[in-house]
Amino acid sequence: MKHQKKFLLSEQDLPTQWYNIQAEMPNKPMPPLNPKTHEPLTAGDLSHIFNMECSKQELDQTHPWIDIPDEVQEKYAYYRSTPLVRAYAFEQALGTRAHIYFKNESTNPLGSHKINSALPQCYYCKQEGDTNVTTETGAGQWGAALAYAAKLYGLEAAVYQVKITMQQKPYRSYLMRTFGAAVQGSPSMSTRAGKDIITREPNHPGSLGTAISEAIELATTTPGCKYALGSVLNHVALHQTIIGLEAEKQMAMAGEYPDKIIACFGGGSNFGGIAFPFMRHVFDGTHKDTEFIAAEPESCPKLTRGKFEYDFGDEAGYTPLLPMYTLGHDFKPANIHAGGLRYHGAGVIISQLVKDGYMRGVDIPQLDSFKAGILFAQTEGIVPAPESCHAIAATIREAQLANEEGKAPVILFNLSGHGLIDMPSYMSYIDGDLVNYRVSDAEIEKNLEEIPLKID
Amino acid sequence: MKHQKKFLLSEQDLPTQWYNIQAEMPNKPMPPLNPKTHEPLTAGDLSHIFNMECSKQELDQTHPWIDIPDEVQEKYAYYRSTPLVRAYAFEQALGTRAHIYFKNESTNPLGSHKINSALPQCYYCKQEGDTNVTTETGAGQWGAALAYAAKLYGLEAAVYQVKITMQQKPYRSYLMRTFGAAVQGSPSMSTRAGKDIITREPNHPGSLGTAISEAIELATTTPGCKYALGSVLNHVALHQTIIGLEAEKQMAMAGEYPDKIIACFGGGSNFGGIAFPFMRHVFDGTHKDTEFIAAEPESCPKLTRGKFEYDFGDEAGYTPLLPMYTLGHDFKPANIHAGGLRYHGAGVIISQLVKDGYMRGVDIPQLDSFKAGILFAQTEGIVPAPESCHAIAATIREAQLANEEGKAPVILFNLSGHGLIDMPSYMSYIDGDLVNYRVSDAEIEKNLEEIPLKID
Repeated sequence: MKHQKKFLLSEQDLPTQWYNIQAEMPNKPMPPLNPKTHEPLTAGDLSHIFNMECSKQELDQTHPWIDIPDEVQEKYAYYRSTPLVRAYAFEQALGTRAHIYFKNESTNPLGSHKINSALPQCYYCKQEGDTNVTTETGAGQWGAALAYAAKLYGLEAAVYQVKITMQQKPYRSYLMRTFGAAVQGSPSMSTRAGKDIITREPNHPGSLGTAISEAIELATTTPGCKYALGSVLNHVALHQTIIGLEAEKQMAMAGEYPDKIIACFGGGSNFGGIAFPFMRHVFDGTHKDTEFIAAEPESCPKLTRGKFEYDFGDEAGYTPLLPMYTLGHDFKPANIHAGGLRYHGAGVIISQLVKDGYMRGVDIPQLDSFKAGILFAQTEGIVPAPESCHAIAATIREAQLANEEGKAPVILFNLSGHGLIDMPSYMSYIDGDLVNYRVSDAEIEKNLEEIPLKID
Repeated sequence: MKHQKKFLLSEQDLPTQWYNIQAEMPNKPMPPLNPKTHEPLTAGDLSHIFNMECSKQELDQTHPWIDIPDEVQEKYAYYRSTPLVRAYAFEQALGTRAHIYFKNESTNPLGSHKINSALPQCYYCKQEGDTNVTTETGAGQWGAALAYAAKLYGLEAAVYQVKITMQQKPYRSYLMRTFGAAVQGSPSMSTRAGKDIITREPNHPGSLGTAISEAIELATTTPGCKYALGSVLNHVALHQTIIGLEAEKQMAMAGEYPDKIIACFGGGSNFGGIAFPFMRHVFDGTHKDTEFIAAEPESCPKLTRGKFEYDFGDEAGYTPLLPMYTLGHDFKPANIHAGGLRYHGAGVIISQLVKDGYMRGVDIPQLDSFKAGILFAQTEGIVPAPESCHAIAATIREAQLANEEGKAPVILFNLSGHGLIDMPSYMSYIDGDLVNYRVSDAEIEKNLEEIPLKID
């Protein structure tokens, strides 16, 4: 046994705090604004939608470290640390001298990183006396994680799932129902927002934007019910930093430090989760050359082709205005199989970091993503989620670039989840039924006209 | 953090040998017989079907420890040890004082224990110069594992999947195809055996027995192609003892020793895998009171209601005659969702151990199995494979029995795999569409009439 393949932390070595990057960013994110008054929002304002603790975390630009509640640490310990794996077989298939590591979040309950934020969000709701939670979900990874976390803490969960992914991937709605959640395809006729969308466009396939509108409407009109978001927001990325904090210790066990850190990018939760803890070493100058690469789908290219403006987080315009790279809140992404990446905007922290040049986006065509995923599956034995396939495709690009340049970088990517319940997507790819969807400049321009508040 | 939840071995502490229980059984299993001459078979006879190394392992009643090849240890190290987990939340939901541990084989590539034998079988085939492997699969766990292992070792794989489970659970055939395997529903028109079955009964739903017949026919008529079986045979259970050998060390880390060891039972691979290493301490008297419980479906009750006779391992009668508890080789099990347990016979080692009173079977109604699986999912966050649900249901029975008796036993069960691609089964249960299938005595009697060689 020459080489150690995987690195795990003992329960005693698990992180006990999350890293709050907001407190250490050279340029702090601009505040969320009330859409009517354009006044900055307070935690009190946000707590009409979210639980109070998450509302505070959302706006905390002071404390770099936030304690993980003991009760959440207990739950984390059931499945964390997740393995850090050196992908020897994948490297060999690529013929690269790069050292490729992946953080395997697919071993979490429900098969993705989403549980890392679902647990604290439900914990705080329970602590604050709420009885119900509601949310949106794309591919269903977040919805399934929330359904389980809600069950653990004795809350009822209602999930609005993007209609098109619910049809493409029925197993994840089955999974949510197995955990006891009520599941509704979005847009639905069960909310005013949904009715308005369907009236305008009866065959709307749904998007994270429509589902968020419906969930927020339910939360704000139902006593004891809070909304829980699975990505985009600062407190979600905060909870996900458990990934990067573990990975930092595990990379040290492997005796290496990553030159490039890669994750797929929908709203930013798995990207921020792995990247933020490493980025503090860029800020403090100890590892200032680390590259951070967010892999987004070519069909939803907000980082590479969107604009940095104040926009709504949802289709109907229920959320605060957020300063972010966006394609416009009514952008309707193509029906790609990576449902979790079909979102029009980037989280505000990520947006500020892109603007300041600390990280960059790359866009991945759908066919490249599945080709990468199949190579990874056949070498490492894990079928990646279609979302994660984007990170793998970006990793392959970097490895090929390194080959051309005669370099051997250390690459770390986040395997955000497995794709075992996304098998119809793989079948469509293998059967030759998938295509790429490149958005036209004209479509992006048109959508950006609807942006409610431009940043000078 | 009061209690450690999960126990893992470092790569350095992984077992380097498998435990060959045959060498230490008080009564050795009777030999497999040539169905025509009734002469005991040699490894040379078996090697027309299986690779030579597995053929030798099959009949080895001499060596208690068999070295795991270095190249297989390397592959095991990617994902092993699997976690041993103390199921605190599940215990709490049951209100039991029993300590319940489970060995989580669902974290393996492809989501079940099957990879543990697929890797060495493909490794030996490759070493011996074979180019192709073929097999049967029920729910598809074994087929998927073999497809991946074959790909890793550069072999082509052809899988005959039980037709009814292929229809009930299409995702696993997608999975096998993603790994590059050719997949055929059984009974099929691609073999003589399949044609004969379909001619006799055009709507035959398939069984492991029919699929085995077809795979053996392909192997014996195709140069360079060997048959690889996923359960029943001695060498398969041998490879699976990695589970129990790890669990033994992990239970020591937890400071406990199991009073009861439970696994679901189809052919015996996951049961033997976890049980055999612990059973050697019954033989040597150091832990002679350990109970071993095999949980079989009520609809396929070979251990609890079958007979110990010489029978074929397949529907068409291509295999050697095996001394085993059987329901008759043409027993057609009901279409339960635990496809991996729909097999008419028990492995010969298990059969001898049952006969000698070292272990016992319990039969689980289908509805009990899913009820148990959902409770486990909602508490531990892992949706169990329908097969594994049987082990969980048996564990619940034992915990309830202990409560009634005022005892607090240490129970260890094997979670052989997850059920994330078995979600339609859960939906059927939740929607109230499932029923129990108890086999009548008359049907068992009728099938046993076809047994080719009775044991006095």
